[in-house]
Amino acid sequence: MSNKQSEVITPRAEDYSKWYNNIVKEAQLAENSAVRGCMVIKPYGFALWENMQAVLDKMFKDTGHQNAYFPLFVPKSLFEAEEKNAEGFAKECAVVTHYRLKTDPSDKAKLIVDPEAKLEEELIVRPTSEAIIWNTYRNWISSYRDLPLLINQWANVVRWEMRTRLFLRTAEFLWQEGHTAHETKKEAVEEAERMQEVYARFAEDYMAMPVWKGRKSDSERFAGAEDTYTIEALMQDGKALQAGTSHFLGQNFAKAFDVKFQTNANKEEYVWATSWGVSTRLIGGLIMTHSDDKGLVLPPKLAPQQVVIVPIPKVNGELKEIAENLITELQGMDIRVKADYDKKRSFGFKFNEYDLRGVPVSVGIGKRDLENGMVQVARRDTLESELVPLEGLAEYIKELLDQIQDNMFLKALRFRQAHTTEVDDFDTFKKVSEEKGGFLLAHWDGTEETEEKIKEATKATIRCIPLEGDMTEGKCVYSGKPSKQRVVFAKAY
Amino acid sequence: MSNKQSEVITPRAEDYSKWYNNIVKEAQLAENSAVRGCMVIKPYGFALWENMQAVLDKMFKDTGHQNAYFPLFVPKSLFEAEEKNAEGFAKECAVVTHYRLKTDPSDKAKLIVDPEAKLEEELIVRPTSEAIIWNTYRNWISSYRDLPLLINQWANVVRWEMRTRLFLRTAEFLWQEGHTAHETKKEAVEEAERMQEVYARFAEDYMAMPVWKGRKSDSERFAGAEDTYTIEALMQDGKALQAGTSHFLGQNFAKAFDVKFQTNANKEEYVWATSWGVSTRLIGGLIMTHSDDKGLVLPPKLAPQQVVIVPIPKVNGELKEIAENLITELQGMDIRVKADYDKKRSFGFKFNEYDLRGVPVSVGIGKRDLENGMVQVARRDTLESELVPLEGLAEYIKELLDQIQDNMFLKALRFRQAHTTEVDDFDTFKKVSEEKGGFLLAHWDGTEETEEKIKEATKATIRCIPLEGDMTEGKCVYSGKPSKQRVVFAKAY
Repeated sequence: MSNKQSEVITPRAEDYSKWYNNIVKEAQLAENSAVRGCMVIKPYGFALWENMQAVLDKMFKDTGHQNAYFPLFVPKSLFEAEEKNAEGFAKECAVVTHYRLKTDPSDKAKLIVDPEAKLEEELIVRPTSEAIIWNTYRNWISSYRDLPLLINQWANVVRWEMRTRLFLRTAEFLWQEGHTAHETKKEAVEEAERMQEVYARFAEDYMAMPVWKGRKSDSERFAGAEDTYTIEALMQDGKALQAGTSHFLGQNFAKAFDVKFQTNANKEEYVWATSWGVSTRLIGGLIMTHSDDKGLVLPPKLAPQQVVIVPIPKVNGELKEIAENLITELQGMDIRVKADYDKKRSFGFKFNEYDLRGVPVSVGIGKRDLENGMVQVARRDTLESELVPLEGLAEYIKELLDQIQDNMFLKALRFRQAHTTEVDDFDTFKKVSEEKGGFLLAHWDGTEETEEKIKEATKATIRCIPLEGDMTEGKCVYSGKPSKQRVVFAKAY
Repeated sequence: MSNKQSEVITPRAEDYSKWYNNIVKEAQLAENSAVRGCMVIKPYGFALWENMQAVLDKMFKDTGHQNAYFPLFVPKSLFEAEEKNAEGFAKECAVVTHYRLKTDPSDKAKLIVDPEAKLEEELIVRPTSEAIIWNTYRNWISSYRDLPLLINQWANVVRWEMRTRLFLRTAEFLWQEGHTAHETKKEAVEEAERMQEVYARFAEDYMAMPVWKGRKSDSERFAGAEDTYTIEALMQDGKALQAGTSHFLGQNFAKAFDVKFQTNANKEEYVWATSWGVSTRLIGGLIMTHSDDKGLVLPPKLAPQQVVIVPIPKVNGELKEIAENLITELQGMDIRVKADYDKKRSFGFKFNEYDLRGVPVSVGIGKRDLENGMVQVARRDTLESELVPLEGLAEYIKELLDQIQDNMFLKALRFRQAHTTEVDDFDTFKKVSEEKGGFLLAHWDGTEETEEKIKEATKATIRCIPLEGDMTEGKCVYSGKPSKQRVVFAKAY
């Protein structure tokens, strides 16, 4: 709908935050709405989300999960049952207090809340669904035969954030939340780890976004969890983005909602739980991992449109036939492709537009090249373009899409490697954090106090305690006390 | 999770309403939640909804629509902008008035609404999204080049209904809502008709549920619409179910939200609109169209599981191999199939269970039949079972699934034909309506007054003014005044 050109993108180096907003707007992914902090996800942004959903949904089903749907509202008495969880979300809840409007007696064209329609008990718009789900699970679980219960929900949730950013932090967002119930602690921990692994695979293999896998420190843990597993990605401004979390909830929710089961040995025990989620925030991560000053760059596996074919504006029958044949061939390979025959816009204008929207491959069909049996193929990730023989073109494009996917991951990985620094003293820590940014691998004494001091001094927080890699012991970068392994620090979104 | 048998289903003839509730519960489709009027859609019910969504979504995309997502909340000032729409929904709105909870000073374990966190403007939880969407469209549409705008949203909505029934009428439900914008009245009317046709095709070809297509009378029209197109199905108790509606909204929302566009001739005009939706209510319709006293009956095209293979309890290697080969073959034909190897439950118990859940085809593999190269194949719709040669079994099953789909539609169609009565005087009208139920085709003088009188006397309402079929003129069954065509009356859900 917009005809604007890519010069509307502020360069990253000039104003990173503006660059991000420009891309979200100009690539027509999303926009702010009339409701404070809530976004409208536009068709192009939503198509991207649908592709992400489809892949994740299959991964969840392949690991034995089923989808279900639970109510949007949580009665206040249920909401407050698991104390830490309630405390964690109480400050950012949308609360429904009434169930009716009536005509304003002083202005017939207006409506007012009907004071007589006050709810006996307030309803919280779910910020997360542990409470309503575990209250339901009490009736579903009575024996070990009912376990494990492996359920996922695709839903909207609301957290009344004060400072919002499109995709990254919005009052309402879309997500999936898995909620599982298990016989043993071991099984529940394995489930939490398995889903972290699923998220990491999705981030790396589909979003082409390398992630650190690790556990959260006590202070960064999900409200109500015993342990939070996280995947952490690095954005181009050197800040980290928490991209997905998976929680081992212990027996906290089972105890709060009295969910017990009869074991195989005929004993009664509380159920063990996990929950895990990723959200439309991932789209923010995708944008900030790959995009450049010309606009959005999308990994082929998730791009709503993978290939665009642009014949020169004066399309004759022959050009159109070539384009249509190519489309048929590419669609036969399950490649998402469209042609742009619009005669009112120039070649150059169109290429700019598709670059702005991050379409991975553009095929330009011109008359002169065609006389030599060639077409122009441009790749969005490197902005390179070359002449390619029409013969075997579909195969070439298929191969190129794979190459782009791989190259985008490697490029992001190299960026992360270049922006990951081992630091062993606090002066260096401060200097690196301030000047270079990125991930800092440093020893930490394991105390919340030190974590807080480091945060105060540098704004860097512990993104995760890695589960793999270097496990050498050392001395805390801040206190000098013993440390079991390096942990990952960064400033974060 | 439940081990109950089908004797828990109350027969239809005994108590139709109880029968319905039993099926929803025992087939594990959904249940009531801790939130008044809100349901939990259980995995089996949700899998059914996912299948319905997948088909509809493809139909919408094939007719040129794109998905997007708009906020859950509607600020009160936007909600009241289109007066009739606001009036229609004001009495059943969930209203968010606060955005924070705090610890109850008199009981530290409790939370109370923080009176200091009162919203300046109340937010309505969307009962439908015309208001928020048309407020957004104002910024998206400026020229005829931006039209048509063809957008659909899959979402949850909330209508604070006082009397709720699982799937049929719930305070929160899942649906899709299409919202389109057009240059001309003609185009918008065509769109509304096109989507009614899509719904009718979905109902008949996938749900195997025959529907009347027609227009609503003035009194039954959607609040804010100029014209409402509907599809109306007949349930087994002789009551009608409005299964999907498509609205021609005229320029009402464009005027309320000031959405104008520059025409090709450089004039400024208000945009023409449609909206259309179907919801999880369809699942209620599906249940009540086909199910019987043994449980749920599902049309193969939508059944989460189309075939179950049940080998005799003592499975040996050979039986398992036969079952697994059959699964591979059926999956290769895109048939949804599972085997049940559970040794703790008997043959008979299992067949009852799968009948209860409406699995279209059950394959029993027993040792004795197998010696003759045969297996037992049972179809859920007719409850017939026969011995079928193992050779060519997969092809046979594929064919059988198609037959079941067709047979279910024909059976429902015959039921509707048998329960559709032309009536020409009001005494007969009352008698048929009371004793036989079903659809009554009667002449009507076109006035709201007569409609109301008939409703008072019989509880029957005008379900639709048909768009096809007999268009002969006549005299109103109630007033004797002239009538242009017969209309469809019925008592309705």
